[in-house]
Amino acid sequence: MVSTPSTPARLRVAVAGASGYAGGEFLRLAAQHPSLEIGALTAHANAGSRLGALQPHLRSLADRVLAPTTAEALAGHDVVVLGLPHGASGEIAAQLPDDVLVLDLGADHRLASAADWRAYYGSEHAGTWPYGLPELVVADGGTQRDRLVGARRIAVPGCNVTAVTLGLQPGVAAGLLDPTDLVAVLANGFSGAGKALKPHLLAAEGLGAASPYAVGGTHRHIPEITQNLRTAGAHAVTISFTPTLVPMSRGILATATARFAPGRHADADELRAVWEAAYAHEPFVELLPAGQWPSTAATIGSNTALVQVALDEAAGRVVTVTAIDNLVKGTAGQAVQAMNVALGLPETAGLVTEGVAP
Amino acid sequence: MVSTPSTPARLRVAVAGASGYAGGEFLRLAAQHPSLEIGALTAHANAGSRLGALQPHLRSLADRVLAPTTAEALAGHDVVVLGLPHGASGEIAAQLPDDVLVLDLGADHRLASAADWRAYYGSEHAGTWPYGLPELVVADGGTQRDRLVGARRIAVPGCNVTAVTLGLQPGVAAGLLDPTDLVAVLANGFSGAGKALKPHLLAAEGLGAASPYAVGGTHRHIPEITQNLRTAGAHAVTISFTPTLVPMSRGILATATARFAPGRHADADELRAVWEAAYAHEPFVELLPAGQWPSTAATIGSNTALVQVALDEAAGRVVTVTAIDNLVKGTAGQAVQAMNVALGLPETAGLVTEGVAP
Amino acid sequence: MVSTPSTPARLRVAVAGASGYAGGEFLRLAAQHPSLEIGALTAHANAGSRLGALQPHLRSLADRVLAPTTAEALAGHDVVVLGLPHGASGEIAAQLPDDVLVLDLGADHRLASAADWRAYYGSEHAGTWPYGLPELVVADGGTQRDRLVGARRIAVPGCNVTAVTLGLQPGVAAGLLDPTDLVAVLANGFSGAGKALKPHLLAAEGLGAASPYAVGGTHRHIPEITQNLRTAGAHAVTISFTPTLVPMSRGILATATARFAPGRHADADELRAVWEAAYAHEPFVELLPAGQWPSTAATIGSNTALVQVALDEAAGRVVTVTAIDNLVKGTAGQAVQAMNVALGLPETAGLVTEGVAP
Amino acid sequence: MVSTPSTPARLRVAVAGASGYAGGEFLRLAAQHPSLEIGALTAHANAGSRLGALQPHLRSLADRVLAPTTAEALAGHDVVVLGLPHGASGEIAAQLPDDVLVLDLGADHRLASAADWRAYYGSEHAGTWPYGLPELVVADGGTQRDRLVGARRIAVPGCNVTAVTLGLQPGVAAGLLDPTDLVAVLANGFSGAGKALKPHLLAAEGLGAASPYAVGGTHRHIPEITQNLRTAGAHAVTISFTPTLVPMSRGILATATARFAPGRHADADELRAVWEAAYAHEPFVELLPAGQWPSTAATIGSNTALVQVALDEAAGRVVTVTAIDNLVKGTAGQAVQAMNVALGLPETAGLVTEGVAP
Repeated sequence: MVSTPSTPARLRVAVAGASGYAGGEFLRLAAQHPSLEIGALTAHANAGSRLGALQPHLRSLADRVLAPTTAEALAGHDVVVLGLPHGASGEIAAQLPDDVLVLDLGADHRLASAADWRAYYGSEHAGTWPYGLPELVVADGGTQRDRLVGARRIAVPGCNVTAVTLGLQPGVAAGLLDPTDLVAVLANGFSGAGKALKPHLLAAEGLGAASPYAVGGTHRHIPEITQNLRTAGAHAVTISFTPTLVPMSRGILATATARFAPGRHADADELRAVWEAAYAHEPFVELLPAGQWPSTAATIGSNTALVQVALDEAAGRVVTVTAIDNLVKGTAGQAVQAMNVALGLPETAGLVTEGVAP
Repeated sequence: MVSTPSTPARLRVAVAGASGYAGGEFLRLAAQHPSLEIGALTAHANAGSRLGALQPHLRSLADRVLAPTTAEALAGHDVVVLGLPHGASGEIAAQLPDDVLVLDLGADHRLASAADWRAYYGSEHAGTWPYGLPELVVADGGTQRDRLVGARRIAVPGCNVTAVTLGLQPGVAAGLLDPTDLVAVLANGFSGAGKALKPHLLAAEGLGAASPYAVGGTHRHIPEITQNLRTAGAHAVTISFTPTLVPMSRGILATATARFAPGRHADADELRAVWEAAYAHEPFVELLPAGQWPSTAATIGSNTALVQVALDEAAGRVVTVTAIDNLVKGTAGQAVQAMNVALGLPETAGLVTEGVAP
Repeated sequence: MVSTPSTPARLRVAVAGASGYAGGEFLRLAAQHPSLEIGALTAHANAGSRLGALQPHLRSLADRVLAPTTAEALAGHDVVVLGLPHGASGEIAAQLPDDVLVLDLGADHRLASAADWRAYYGSEHAGTWPYGLPELVVADGGTQRDRLVGARRIAVPGCNVTAVTLGLQPGVAAGLLDPTDLVAVLANGFSGAGKALKPHLLAAEGLGAASPYAVGGTHRHIPEITQNLRTAGAHAVTISFTPTLVPMSRGILATATARFAPGRHADADELRAVWEAAYAHEPFVELLPAGQWPSTAATIGSNTALVQVALDEAAGRVVTVTAIDNLVKGTAGQAVQAMNVALGLPETAGLVTEGVAP
Repeated sequence: MVSTPSTPARLRVAVAGASGYAGGEFLRLAAQHPSLEIGALTAHANAGSRLGALQPHLRSLADRVLAPTTAEALAGHDVVVLGLPHGASGEIAAQLPDDVLVLDLGADHRLASAADWRAYYGSEHAGTWPYGLPELVVADGGTQRDRLVGARRIAVPGCNVTAVTLGLQPGVAAGLLDPTDLVAVLANGFSGAGKALKPHLLAAEGLGAASPYAVGGTHRHIPEITQNLRTAGAHAVTISFTPTLVPMSRGILATATARFAPGRHADADELRAVWEAAYAHEPFVELLPAGQWPSTAATIGSNTALVQVALDEAAGRVVTVTAIDNLVKGTAGQAVQAMNVALGLPETAGLVTEGVAP
């Protein structure tokens, strides 16, 4: 594309953790974003490597060489993206100027409760940043989007959290669902586990296998889901949360169920009306037509969340299913969306809603 | 192997529906069974075909030609296996002699309640046969195994039903779990859907995709689960049941959760003790060591069910996870096991407990 | 994006066969193309259906209803895309005005030889259109790109053909390779087989399986490869061509080998120099650095072809490997690229070079 | 099974490398073998671990604890299986008594040429043992089977080697094929790469991807293929050999092509007759009916090799395709088969010919 005089200046973005899946996905999206110019790329163990050797799908950046992740390397950019292991963001972020927009793809700044942080992560809390889920309903009015305008620090939500929150929040916000006995089971693609070299993440092990992990209330995304549903209006939240690895590289399918709140009920049409109202104007969340169920395949590469809700009258439960691409709406696309809101760009800039399927 | 004078006579088995996944899997197992001799093989649309063209993995039977499925073709055998679409078994079975052991791999004869049958299957009930889940706890003592000895008609359980029942029944039988608010979500391999030519079952669609089906209380396995848990001692059962297709050909991973029954509680060790006691002597059900979670990969090709149970104190739920091969412990292996019991053969004859992994 | 007075008028495109994989992929790309506006969508068996029910990933078009495929439905557009079974394009195309750009994603108009057409397709030849592979080297100078400028009928190449041609043509065009004993073996994703409901295309069959098809010189892409390599300068071409289905939805990995032409030889560096020169200025074909081999994963969703070439001195063969996304560079992206050339748009408009990985 | 007085004494087998894929697969087969009793299990990095934590599919051995791999630990067995990285077998084997049958699943003792060993493995040659491919045709009469009777050291062949050799050898042995311009391209499951923790072997990378490795004549299986085809009668062998990783855990599909030897030709029927004659009496190699092509799925878990051959008259090449399970006929099943021959047991003891499909 030829730049014309009226083209706005590009914003320079640096990515720390450019060799990882989260950082790589941000770069894929950034390469299509009309307002971004890709600046410094850094890594830890992979510093000194050519990006093309590590992320061969990022063709236009193949010859970039990764610098070590330091505040110096990240200086001089308008936007800095941190795709770092949890615990590593705080120190780097503290060294960046206040007027730089910092997007933390990791968990460090998501939780408001330092106690929760310590309980689930076992380290000191780095502090709390504005939470980057624009669609999150805020009980006292509006959405989290409003709180992101002008923000210069954004904690990008967890992938599982995004899927479960988007599925359940309309009913929770409406007081229709009982948030004290939620049950969520997820099918997760392997990229959600990152590039860690662990035996159970090998292809030979994962192909043809489904297996759960972090069962029994230990997963670190639990307090984040709880926090979100409280933001949406729940007084107390308890959730049984079980992720399962299944043989796909991307995608989360979250099945989350709830009973009606005491004294509340809705028939199937009323139920759909609540979800429809919640997402009617959301560009990236779509309630599917009645009877059509989400497939992760339809979301791959896109920032779309597909949601469905149904009533199981006999079981006394509302069943919601949400499909997202864990690396896009679950991570890097969410970051771009939140960045767009923070910077006053069109919220959909640089993002697509069409998945790469089949 | 050369037959010696002391070798017991082989039992002749006929398989109706030999071109389908259930019938084919029975044949795979039958080919290894020390007491079976494979007789007539029949099919409907595929009658006249060479088995090797349809089931190329069944090498020793490759040159067999499929006969049309009729009572005549199935006559003269000691055991008849029906791997037919639901609704088709009743008529054939009625024409077979009473002293022939008939194993129905389909649903027709599983439900005791004709009303349930009509509600979920929409046709006339074919009647109820002894239910072929040997490990099913019977509230008034013993297991379903006892009821199978000498049986000549056996309704082989549904695959999802087997996984969910084995996961939950120890706690239900012990009165520890509240059976009125169960939630089960399953990851299912595609062979569970059979060989039906439907667009969503195409490989191009299924590879890289997770998607739910029969959501909201409509799945036909629900009344069968309910029936089993009642047999195990529950007075009333309600279950939210959601299966999801994931990209594997075989395997079911069932995550089933429950709250404690009113007034009951157990810590993690007590919980495990209940499950351990239930399955300590079962050759095909294994409670994994604490902290190790089932993977479907470990069960492929075997008649093993791997079970784990954990307590999520914060969520107030007990979480059970069960992995099986849907075609073995979920269908054909279960049938062999039940047949062994019925005929007085060693229960493990012709079955293996080691999965084909990775 | 808001249209400003200086925005060029959008070109209206109609897609026949919008429910298939090829048509669907063209729509996915068209939705991102700055100069296209999506008009009529038609189908045959699926006429009357909502697109969202058939192609749930095409969110922005979900509510479009498919019209029957007729010349009337396709009238009044600037561009018409035909994603039809072979044999069906000719009749429709004959009814479209000469000044409409028609892109045939099917095979009908690719072959110059009516005899080849009859031999491989067994029907009457519909005629020959300009061949839509812009990078195809033309022996008497330039590339096929030159022949596409201003074209109003374009035969979009076959997916396997694209991969094999791009791998081998630099060496063939340079006279370095002997084109009379080529051997190509391909790993193919299932979407290449379309949405046909055939047993061997079921997910249960395809997951965990590799199997060849059209072995022994029967594949219809063979005369098209031959034609291309003749265009690139070969006097005679013979190729052993074996595609194999492997468990992925998208992607082609083509391994194509050749001996040196009589009297010719090159060392590894010289060899690379030939390929480098051929593709140095091609926006969508990339020769990877020495030692790095193409993976289909790096191309998914993009119009990129990744190519590598190596010398196996001991075997006396040059080995080339090419990876593409069969639905993008192999079909719909190629069509967009050729359309861009034909219409004088930037060749890369609406296409990306970054794959969706992992 | 109850042991009767007439039951022959079990042979005690020790497995070194019991935590790897090759060792694990041998154990899976050994657990079904009527004449084996499983003794010591050893490992290197995993010594001290419970086998159930590493190989959860080997249920009957779950509580075994792995000893360090030493000659002492392996002493006192009738059979010792070495599933060790190449280079490690020689030293251990030298410490084992001559009358113990040692099966080396690794490469150390396969090559007769020390020069080839050094060229491809870069270390000192450990010596040459009888080669454990019973079906290998020996040019001066008979098969390799004859040389294995009574052997006490056996080098178990490489997985790729087995597939390529079985595909090509009938034509080579008959002098029908020209062995000096062979081309083989393979689709390989990930278990062939072992449990090594390397980034490209991660599930996130491997799912949805096809990619080649060891391209250009560098793969260590090349001299072994060459050696085999010389044994079968070729005077000189040159082969272009390219393996490709595809998204499956098990299986090799080898497409191997050759031209006719100078002055030789055969039509399709004559061609098939040669292959048919070669394998008519082989229990584990099956030439499929004309027109049916091998799928790896049909071989999983079995010791079967499915072979097909076709004539591509236009290309002037014979195309052979062979499917095996790389861990069974490619490794551990082959070892059991060779062991059976060496010890005078029925060659098929403990092995199945039916694959686990779908």
